[in-house]
Amino acid sequence: MTRTVVGSASKEVVIGLNQPFVIIGERINPTGRKKLAEEMKAGDFRRVKTDVLAQVEAGAHMLDVNAGIPLADEPAILAETVKLVQSLTDVPLSIDSSVVEALAAGLAVYRGKALVNSVTGEDERLEAVLPLVARYGAAVVAISNDDSGISEDPDVRFAVAKKIVSRAADHGIPKEDVVVDPLVMPVGAIPTAAQQVFWLLRRLRDELQVNTTLGASNVSFGLPNRIGINATFLAMAATHGLTSAITNPLEPEITATINATNVLRGLDPNCSAWIGAYRQPEDSERGRRRRGRQRPNPNG
Amino acid sequence: MTRTVVGSASKEVVIGLNQPFVIIGERINPTGRKKLAEEMKAGDFRRVKTDVLAQVEAGAHMLDVNAGIPLADEPAILAETVKLVQSLTDVPLSIDSSVVEALAAGLAVYRGKALVNSVTGEDERLEAVLPLVARYGAAVVAISNDDSGISEDPDVRFAVAKKIVSRAADHGIPKEDVVVDPLVMPVGAIPTAAQQVFWLLRRLRDELQVNTTLGASNVSFGLPNRIGINATFLAMAATHGLTSAITNPLEPEITATINATNVLRGLDPNCSAWIGAYRQPEDSERGRRRRGRQRPNPNG
Repeated sequence: MTRTVVGSASKEVVIGLNQPFVIIGERINPTGRKKLAEEMKAGDFRRVKTDVLAQVEAGAHMLDVNAGIPLADEPAILAETVKLVQSLTDVPLSIDSSVVEALAAGLAVYRGKALVNSVTGEDERLEAVLPLVARYGAAVVAISNDDSGISEDPDVRFAVAKKIVSRAADHGIPKEDVVVDPLVMPVGAIPTAAQQVFWLLRRLRDELQVNTTLGASNVSFGLPNRIGINATFLAMAATHGLTSAITNPLEPEITATINATNVLRGLDPNCSAWIGAYRQPEDSERGRRRRGRQRPNPNG
Repeated sequence: MTRTVVGSASKEVVIGLNQPFVIIGERINPTGRKKLAEEMKAGDFRRVKTDVLAQVEAGAHMLDVNAGIPLADEPAILAETVKLVQSLTDVPLSIDSSVVEALAAGLAVYRGKALVNSVTGEDERLEAVLPLVARYGAAVVAISNDDSGISEDPDVRFAVAKKIVSRAADHGIPKEDVVVDPLVMPVGAIPTAAQQVFWLLRRLRDELQVNTTLGASNVSFGLPNRIGINATFLAMAATHGLTSAITNPLEPEITATINATNVLRGLDPNCSAWIGAYRQPEDSERGRRRRGRQRPNPNG
């Protein structure tokens, strides 16, 4: 079973099929968060701090850190954010940028084995990012698109993933350290979008034997009740082999669904994580009386 | 693709892999509902009426009707309940009893093609129930246990399902009219319980080519936040081929999850059912109620 080990200075997290699903918190990202972008650019990291602590408290096993702010010094801000986040928490980080210099700056200050987010299948990107990943002994998210964009043909996306894994090996990066993102399209535009991903996840698990991650929220683009779609998509994807996701742990429906997949995949021994998270103090007889009206449990 | 067609006097419902998931409302069942049991025994059907209308309003495609009340005249009460429910709604019914005479009484008054719930794999049960199913041209739920109880070995459960399908054929009942319930054990007691069911669902779909149903709630027996486990289990089961479930449509998390599986399996053309259910006219009161918990949408 392929194990991807990432770490901070003091804590390791293992991504793998026989491991509990790894939640990578997505909130430290100014994209589409205007206030956060302005604050980070101005050197005000109070909201970052709050978001770090809240995500870890809510169950994030790793945090994604992105500092992509237009017209800002992204390498400097990303490095500063990485240092700050590592001073607040010991969960490992995913260092997230489309700018190679920013990845380099983040990796230079990172303590531990980071996940680099990400490399795509274009030759130029591969040759810029993979040496960095190799130099720092990091792991990397491999996004299965290339010069031609995101193919609607899952065969093409599989081929791109395979190419990245092979190119990574040329740079001395083992396949355990390549976590493939098969990419999901909006199901509102492409009705087979989720089915394509499930098929890709099984192939990535069985043929390429790599671990996987996804930014799940794209699947629900344009639809109402996006969290409902995203949570159900994650449950279905987990049972086809998805091993981690970049998602929002502050949404209780998302974390509950992911926690439930661990229970249902037999990866929560004695269901103790589930029971710890959801046991109600009101479960005691006294609590029931104090709470007053008790809603009958139709499943009880 | 195997299609199970059931119907009332005026409405057909198709259970099948390329059909939207069929929700069979579980609420008309006095088991564990002491008040309802007392009322039904005394001929007071007001709560039944409320539960029928609420479940159909919440999205049930069929309703399960059970009148299993200790020391009561179950055949008479079941027949009366079936007549009442058919006077209130045109959704097809699942006639649910472990008493053969009650099934016979329910079928005798039913208008349309019912689903008989259920037959198990014991020879005696098969020879008592299958002739009834054949006589009324009904469909039947086949529960994969037999004299030896519910086996923990999924191979044994598959063999029992196969035996029932074969025995049904002897009685002239085609496999389209046998809906197999692979049975799920509590995951709190048996960590592989859900994985066993997923494996069985794939075999039932691919080898036996039958449709399937499940009473999902057993999976979460003994655990807190049962709805969270049940909803996630249904999402995972649907993607392994589960085509219907006997469940509670009044739980917004359950219906939202099932509706989302239809979207993600490409079975909700233009996502119009989803959009109709969850669109925010910022927002109709009804939409809010159906969606349940509403929080700010970070993906919006």
